[in-house]
Amino acid sequence: MARPKNAFYAQSGGVTAVINASACGVIETARKHKTKIGKVYAGRNGIIGALTEDLIDTSKESAAAIRALRHTPAGAFGSCRYKLKGLEENRAQYERLIEVFKAHNIGYFFYNGGGDSQDTAYKVSQIGERLGYPVICVGVPKTVDNDLPITDCSPGFGSVAKYVAVSIREAAFDVASMAKTSTKIFVMEVMGRHAGWIAAAAGLAAEKAGDAPHVILFPEREFDEEAFLAKVGKTVKAQGYCAIVVSEGVRDKAGRFLAESGTKDAFGHAQLGGVAPVIAQLIKDKLGYKYHWAVADYLQRAARHIASKTDVEQAYALGKKAVELALKGRNAVMPVIVRQSNKPYKWTVGEADLADVANVEKKMPADYITADGFGITKKCRTYLEPLIQGEDYPPYKNGLPQYVTLKNAAVKKKLGGTFKV
Amino acid sequence: MARPKNAFYAQSGGVTAVINASACGVIETARKHKTKIGKVYAGRNGIIGALTEDLIDTSKESAAAIRALRHTPAGAFGSCRYKLKGLEENRAQYERLIEVFKAHNIGYFFYNGGGDSQDTAYKVSQIGERLGYPVICVGVPKTVDNDLPITDCSPGFGSVAKYVAVSIREAAFDVASMAKTSTKIFVMEVMGRHAGWIAAAAGLAAEKAGDAPHVILFPEREFDEEAFLAKVGKTVKAQGYCAIVVSEGVRDKAGRFLAESGTKDAFGHAQLGGVAPVIAQLIKDKLGYKYHWAVADYLQRAARHIASKTDVEQAYALGKKAVELALKGRNAVMPVIVRQSNKPYKWTVGEADLADVANVEKKMPADYITADGFGITKKCRTYLEPLIQGEDYPPYKNGLPQYVTLKNAAVKKKLGGTFKV
Repeated sequence: MARPKNAFYAQSGGVTAVINASACGVIETARKHKTKIGKVYAGRNGIIGALTEDLIDTSKESAAAIRALRHTPAGAFGSCRYKLKGLEENRAQYERLIEVFKAHNIGYFFYNGGGDSQDTAYKVSQIGERLGYPVICVGVPKTVDNDLPITDCSPGFGSVAKYVAVSIREAAFDVASMAKTSTKIFVMEVMGRHAGWIAAAAGLAAEKAGDAPHVILFPEREFDEEAFLAKVGKTVKAQGYCAIVVSEGVRDKAGRFLAESGTKDAFGHAQLGGVAPVIAQLIKDKLGYKYHWAVADYLQRAARHIASKTDVEQAYALGKKAVELALKGRNAVMPVIVRQSNKPYKWTVGEADLADVANVEKKMPADYITADGFGITKKCRTYLEPLIQGEDYPPYKNGLPQYVTLKNAAVKKKLGGTFKV
Repeated sequence: MARPKNAFYAQSGGVTAVINASACGVIETARKHKTKIGKVYAGRNGIIGALTEDLIDTSKESAAAIRALRHTPAGAFGSCRYKLKGLEENRAQYERLIEVFKAHNIGYFFYNGGGDSQDTAYKVSQIGERLGYPVICVGVPKTVDNDLPITDCSPGFGSVAKYVAVSIREAAFDVASMAKTSTKIFVMEVMGRHAGWIAAAAGLAAEKAGDAPHVILFPEREFDEEAFLAKVGKTVKAQGYCAIVVSEGVRDKAGRFLAESGTKDAFGHAQLGGVAPVIAQLIKDKLGYKYHWAVADYLQRAARHIASKTDVEQAYALGKKAVELALKGRNAVMPVIVRQSNKPYKWTVGEADLADVANVEKKMPADYITADGFGITKKCRTYLEPLIQGEDYPPYKNGLPQYVTLKNAAVKKKLGGTFKV
């Protein structure tokens, strides 16, 4: 009987609080099928690890270490921002992949990432047919931006959503306390250059009239300074303070990012800061209110300490399902979340063709934003609410979360030379 | 038998994740001694509530609502930044306080705040002797800055400390994943304009060589650009990335805040941004590394979701003790944390004279910072480590922490006219 084929797994694009939970799902499930899948080799820094034959032998990791991936944020094997070109444009890349796969008996390819990464996965899925090397390629979805199509949501998003909703609720309690004699405005900047999914999620904190956040600025809506200032002024009069969430991707009427419109450093370089200070300063200049602002940046997508349990479970389930699909011989597919019901929230794992996933961006529906452009609708809330349900706390020691750092032992190289990426 | 005197309680200065836990300790303890303390009236917005006769009747709040203060961040009764002048400078303020205290039968005064607030508490404690109105005045310590003297630590600090240590650990896992092809530098700005206690606490995340944060910039050390850049470059070479924590109070050789040195907005106004973007841009300009930066701002001091259990317990215990001291007739005192041992960490509650507390700032000892100026010493770690021990999660509903908003029913005014503050 032939040796079972090994699997290649890699993480790609911006990492999340739960991408390692998907890795855990992939590796734990593969380990349960040792007659069919040999070793799982992880690519060090995504597809670059495959191209440079820089493979990590995950079989060297203990069961406990792999289990700990479930509660460890970020990419345990390193990620990359590197997009494969088309087969016609760079045939050498694909021939190199095949060379590495052959050398290491790799027959399964799992690629964990967002839109660009699923494009890479899709391209790799074609090398069987087009270059005659049989590899079963399955994508594993991941993105804090929640912009992958077909899947109801994307792992990583639910945890950022929970973080931003919790954070704006807490900061708003703070500013409400201080508003009498001090800060009246709080601006929190969140990720989302093209889509307002994360900004919208902050809106979950506002459960009843008057609750923060009072204003959300979406990249989907052109920034209307006059309407915005009127809304802020009205809110301060009614509530005594105003808590604002702004997406990094908000643009002015000319289509420029607001983040780029305001600041220059001492040398005249543009864009030192984010959009939060620009918005805060605008309010100060026009309305005179004292402000504070925060830019959460990586803190939001790395915040495993406040991850959504739903998100962690889905991330794991999708990793597990990816392996199950591969074992069924399904090539060029990606497992997806299928929503069965809202209340109670029920979901199952379905399957999409990578051809339908690659390079398609899921936009936020127009009717998820209120008519005034500054809030989320009930429909949006109904969609988002289940995604932040449940807490899944990591273990703590000495007051700090215990995240695993793997050994990441290199697989001995079998090929001569190097490959330039 | 005379009616028992009522108590006045108020929150002052910047709020914290656990100041309401102290309020809970005060009110729950007072409720257990109804024969000696009548009602607890809270000042709406600190001492301003007393001056303007804007009192909140906490007896209208249910036991459950008061209990929920223990897990609710920020100041439930509103805070203020307002310092009483000296008796000679503004006698009218003190006469007004006495007028309000008399009108509402107030014989106990609890003031929950940091250095400036304890100065106010101390001044109020003297009105018995100097103006003939007997009031027992007890301070309750609170400050994220950890700069109150005598007490081993200040409630509020431990939770910020935990937040910043957890956050930099998580963000560093993120940037480590991305460093191969993308971000190599992460800069997190933390609070602390005069003292580096919070920045130092972030250093707890670095448990072994190579762990993040790799560089800490303290307000106690003049910013040395050359040494800093050398350290960053060396770290990137060794670790592949560099995670930096910078205190908002870092100054250059001329004594200017770095936060003010860099940025001008489109209108030429200085200081749009914080210090994190200035540091990040400097690294980009001089070393060429791609960066991300975060400014946690209010998120750090409001982060009740990741509060230190030790901190919550101490905040409650000090509120409780304040009432017990008052019942013993102790005037012009403040309960303090006394450290009994480090391992295991043991603490008791002691007592300090407000005269010794008011306007004294506890500096971070010089030997808490490493010789190169970029890290914390073992001695510092020994001091800080116990303060972040334990988690004390708030209850969640629909994926969000359930913080209480009190009714804050006003006590009927008994005095005519208004008092201008």
